[in-house]
Amino acid sequence: MNFSIEHFAEIAENGVANIKYPSTTPGLYAPIVYAMASGGKRLRPALCLAVYAALSHRAPEDIINQALAVEMFHNFTLLHDDVMDRADIRRGQPTVHRKWNDNVAILSGDTMLSMAYGLLADGAGDRFASLFEVFNRTAIEVYEGQQMDMEFEKRSDVTVSEYMDMIRLKTSVLLGCACRIGAMMAGASDYVCDAFFNYGEALGLAFQLRDDWLDTFGDPAVFGKEIGGDIINRKKTWLLITCMAEAEDEIDGILREDLEPQEKISQVKRVYNRLRLAERCQELTERYSAQAADCLTNVELDHDARDFFTELCTKAAARSH
Amino acid sequence: MNFSIEHFAEIAENGVANIKYPSTTPGLYAPIVYAMASGGKRLRPALCLAVYAALSHRAPEDIINQALAVEMFHNFTLLHDDVMDRADIRRGQPTVHRKWNDNVAILSGDTMLSMAYGLLADGAGDRFASLFEVFNRTAIEVYEGQQMDMEFEKRSDVTVSEYMDMIRLKTSVLLGCACRIGAMMAGASDYVCDAFFNYGEALGLAFQLRDDWLDTFGDPAVFGKEIGGDIINRKKTWLLITCMAEAEDEIDGILREDLEPQEKISQVKRVYNRLRLAERCQELTERYSAQAADCLTNVELDHDARDFFTELCTKAAARSH
Repeated sequence: MNFSIEHFAEIAENGVANIKYPSTTPGLYAPIVYAMASGGKRLRPALCLAVYAALSHRAPEDIINQALAVEMFHNFTLLHDDVMDRADIRRGQPTVHRKWNDNVAILSGDTMLSMAYGLLADGAGDRFASLFEVFNRTAIEVYEGQQMDMEFEKRSDVTVSEYMDMIRLKTSVLLGCACRIGAMMAGASDYVCDAFFNYGEALGLAFQLRDDWLDTFGDPAVFGKEIGGDIINRKKTWLLITCMAEAEDEIDGILREDLEPQEKISQVKRVYNRLRLAERCQELTERYSAQAADCLTNVELDHDARDFFTELCTKAAARSH
Repeated sequence: MNFSIEHFAEIAENGVANIKYPSTTPGLYAPIVYAMASGGKRLRPALCLAVYAALSHRAPEDIINQALAVEMFHNFTLLHDDVMDRADIRRGQPTVHRKWNDNVAILSGDTMLSMAYGLLADGAGDRFASLFEVFNRTAIEVYEGQQMDMEFEKRSDVTVSEYMDMIRLKTSVLLGCACRIGAMMAGASDYVCDAFFNYGEALGLAFQLRDDWLDTFGDPAVFGKEIGGDIINRKKTWLLITCMAEAEDEIDGILREDLEPQEKISQVKRVYNRLRLAERCQELTERYSAQAADCLTNVELDHDARDFFTELCTKAAARSH
């Protein structure tokens, strides 16, 4: 078995390319094809496939539909989130609501959600009811996370603990769910299913914190988008929330001031640097990354599989894009 | 057993009032409670419960969650449709996107869709996989119907056959699905499940055609909303589409003219009357209503149950609000 993230991502990519769409009402499906084709890391389906392969020693392709269910769900949330956030660009391309319009993004998104459930069922056999229970609980949690995220934008007293709870719901539980589905499809015990869920969840937290870090401290040449977007948009990231807890008046003053973007970014970064926020954010990221790896200590795995899952944690905390 | 639509609608109403919502993120659930509480006829869950009771001779409450799944799904589509159609009022109250905003309507709608799947699963036991298959296919068809409806608004060459196909998808299949779920939960044969699906579908067509008729020819004192809204909004109903096929230039001229609403309505109605569209629409409605009743000819039913389903067809074609 080739245990590399690229291998599993490629299987997911092929799966995406082979999804069958009805030929009726092409106007409904063209935006879905567009959104699904526009790439991304395919991290969630790749994780799902890897967990299945590691535990069952069978071909990951066996559960391609279940892996694609997670990817379809993830892309559905992006379609609707981009409408809600008025985001114009996603992965270097116009978002669906910009390329078409809001109504198309809403209705095609709804269709993707139902298609995701359909993919989950396809080939799951007797396991469907239990997969469904996990998937549906996760879906509701993701909506709750998005709701919290939107409510945070209007608040100035968000705590770090609330923020961690929000990213756990909005981002991490879906990675946990992807891992759990892979384990369930492999027929793993409850202990192993829980261990892989916890692994995915902690990995997701590390991923999101690294995202926050990269947007402010990343290398523009490697990151792929401009640095400082979160600062300009006053996005409530771990960095800003921690800064507001420790130097509220100062950071408030800078954010309110009418400054050129680059000047604002460097003034905010000066405060962040004084508070050692880059280092502290990175320490926290590495703590979650180590916690993720620890979840698998008592799970029986071949060497190459264990190395794969452990290295993924290290990479998540060190990635530069 | 009390076979009256009011009885089954009341059971559905009580079920709606007893739906449990998580206490987390109340901002996500308040719009759902509001949308679900705002009434309507509860026709779909009532039909589902009635079919189950008629075939199983058991308490309709047994399958309240499956009936509520259909109602939750229906209300989810209304939330999103109202955003897409920029509709301000629904059942005499502000729509969710007007009372809150678009983002709330989108995200709470998504949550309703996942909750609908959850209700379908709740208590379905071994039947869940087959219920899911029916429900999910129906959901996709409803989106296809909504997509066609939106595309029709931009076209001037929509045929009556395309229109019937659209309302079948957008409206009727969900009534058919409600009936089929009731039959499946009663453990009915495939023949009986199909018969009830066909019954609900034909009933739905009769309902929608009567809706078109009422909006133009209804009695304002009984109808509950103003007459002629469809004419003013140039809504592609059976009446307008048939009229455009038979007197295109004339109706186009009137619709384009800058007239007072009441004058426009009466000029359009004059053309409709000359073409006998009220009578012809009503004839078609009654044909579907009779077709619905015919679907049950070979289904074994008690007298009161058969009378109930037959009278529902008559009422659908004769209702005044």
